[in-house]
Amino acid sequence: MNQEEQWLLPDGVEEVLPGRARAIEQLRRQALDLFQRWGYELVFPPLIEFLESLLNGAGRDLERETFKITDQLTGRLMGVRADMTPQVARMDAHSLRRNAPSRLCYCSTAMRTRPAQAGGTRLPYQLGVELFGHAGADSDLEVISVMLDTLALAGVEQQVVLDLGHVGLFRALLDSVSLSEADQNALEAIYVRKAKVELDTFLAERDLPAASARALAQLPWLAGGAAVLTDARTLLAEFPDALTALDELQLLLDVLHARGIQVHLDLGELRGYHYHTGCVFAAYLPGESEPVAKGGRYDHIGEVFGRARPATGFSADLKMLAARQQVAAAPGILARGSLQDSEFAGQVASLRQAGERVVLALPGADNDAAELGCDRQLVATADGWSVTAL
Amino acid sequence: MNQEEQWLLPDGVEEVLPGRARAIEQLRRQALDLFQRWGYELVFPPLIEFLESLLNGAGRDLERETFKITDQLTGRLMGVRADMTPQVARMDAHSLRRNAPSRLCYCSTAMRTRPAQAGGTRLPYQLGVELFGHAGADSDLEVISVMLDTLALAGVEQQVVLDLGHVGLFRALLDSVSLSEADQNALEAIYVRKAKVELDTFLAERDLPAASARALAQLPWLAGGAAVLTDARTLLAEFPDALTALDELQLLLDVLHARGIQVHLDLGELRGYHYHTGCVFAAYLPGESEPVAKGGRYDHIGEVFGRARPATGFSADLKMLAARQQVAAAPGILARGSLQDSEFAGQVASLRQAGERVVLALPGADNDAAELGCDRQLVATADGWSVTAL
Repeated sequence: MNQEEQWLLPDGVEEVLPGRARAIEQLRRQALDLFQRWGYELVFPPLIEFLESLLNGAGRDLERETFKITDQLTGRLMGVRADMTPQVARMDAHSLRRNAPSRLCYCSTAMRTRPAQAGGTRLPYQLGVELFGHAGADSDLEVISVMLDTLALAGVEQQVVLDLGHVGLFRALLDSVSLSEADQNALEAIYVRKAKVELDTFLAERDLPAASARALAQLPWLAGGAAVLTDARTLLAEFPDALTALDELQLLLDVLHARGIQVHLDLGELRGYHYHTGCVFAAYLPGESEPVAKGGRYDHIGEVFGRARPATGFSADLKMLAARQQVAAAPGILARGSLQDSEFAGQVASLRQAGERVVLALPGADNDAAELGCDRQLVATADGWSVTAL
Repeated sequence: MNQEEQWLLPDGVEEVLPGRARAIEQLRRQALDLFQRWGYELVFPPLIEFLESLLNGAGRDLERETFKITDQLTGRLMGVRADMTPQVARMDAHSLRRNAPSRLCYCSTAMRTRPAQAGGTRLPYQLGVELFGHAGADSDLEVISVMLDTLALAGVEQQVVLDLGHVGLFRALLDSVSLSEADQNALEAIYVRKAKVELDTFLAERDLPAASARALAQLPWLAGGAAVLTDARTLLAEFPDALTALDELQLLLDVLHARGIQVHLDLGELRGYHYHTGCVFAAYLPGESEPVAKGGRYDHIGEVFGRARPATGFSADLKMLAARQQVAAAPGILARGSLQDSEFAGQVASLRQAGERVVLALPGADNDAAELGCDRQLVATADGWSVTAL
């Protein structure tokens, strides 16, 4: 490797320099404070775990996304977390064991074998909340509200288009027919591709009840504005579980519209289907192919830890959320003197106590005030010390 | 794996639950704000890099501590950082390229193949500063001062014993003799073990100038209080570079004593010798075998990136620093109502705006006020809403 290559970073891996780091740190604090005011408690799940613990209860996508490493102490396989949600679910089920709902939040780096899309990151700085112990629209609404408040902190709430779906619709239709597991998987794959011709062929080749076949054929194209819900009510009239899901979507839509959020309903959306069990949502910014925040309900995740609790949550990549922001440092005071001089050291300490950024001029160095971000200086005068403009 | 084992964590890997997480987060913010007031700018170095970039310019210990993974996109070997210092040095040398001194700080998780000692962590939440572009006592003093201010934030400054050494002493003696590289490494290993008999044999078997041999034989046992510096001045009188190092130690000692810090000088200490070039220091808490914070000068690290700058810094494990602390959540307000009710939603929002933690009671859930950390409730009265004790 030559010198040019020493600093090349792998694709999807980036360093964050001061201007952006300040923006990310600022948003991190504001978001964690927001979560705290909603009652969400911060936790730090570990960066690595035994692979089975990390992947248990999670969808199969997560396995492909997870870097595997060998534990030199035991020889067992460990994984670097690609997502925090299963870890936080374990904390709820095993470590906290509360009867009341648990509200937990986190903000740490995850690591993925591949970026979600070309040019995307493999190291999202993942910020999110999880709410355990309640099933129903109220907790979905709470989590979506926290997500919107977070987007508002980042100044993007009004540009966002919120994709809203409910995997309970597809599930209700699957429950109404008897398909082999292989057929269920094939159908799901067709739904994910929204492949119309394939879908029609698939349905024609099976002997399904007419109402189910019609609904399965049309569900993927029920996408758009509020009118979609009216069409869906007609199409899914014979499926009570689907109607319950539609009621919940209607409720969420009303609150979102009242808040001025653009919503795009997508009733055939199966994002994270193996993992999610109810309402799912994703917030897109104009021009971005990956959502800036996403989440949904996943009621079965605690089962492998011996304590299934209904759950819903959202997560966002803080680096993406703060991507358009740079925050400048507050202008500082350049101070010439030595910390060995206790009078000088005291002056500098009290300026810092008052919240000032005070940068020491180091002897012999090029103490360029502009590079050091200083617009004033601390100088010794006949009467003591004073801060003057530079 | 049975259910019992699902939640077992690997040795040296721990999850952080709310009480401790709040303490860590609080100290994280206070420390980063402190660094900022000293002029240190936050950066986020990436969690993974190509292995050569990560290990270049770092000591050989770092290679053993670094987890290796294969980049699925290129097939090349990557490493998960075991330390942030070389990464921050690259930012200074390559990405920032300032003429003025660069002051950078970070706070992120590092990952080590093995804990530093039995029962220790493999996932330190590493907090630290690096100061590039100045050689000399003033920058060492600055970094030690920032470290002490950080220990003061954690409330442990006055319990700390600061180990202080200077690898320039051993280096000056090595420069005064001609030893093969193998001999130099053997001698260093003997110093690290402080193996007296071995050392005497080693020196007796080589034909070294008398003053050098005498100094090399006694340096490892020059440890203790201020008097050690007087003994060292006599022993090392013929080695000008060593005397310069002693001058610096004297200067640091005076400032530390003035601040009321207990100092233990250890002039034969070679911790991180392959990496460090000058003054080295480590802060120990009573009863702990690993330092709570440590650092030192490392002037050659930027060379591999084409721009060597003198450098000094310190780092601490935030989890260890906050280990004795638990921070309770501020008591909250339990609010019964639905976010669909805009009047209720407005009341809750304004309480949060005023800084209150407001937890929604979810319909049908066991909204136990104690588990939810609430001591008051929001209730509807004839005249509107009011907050009452629970």
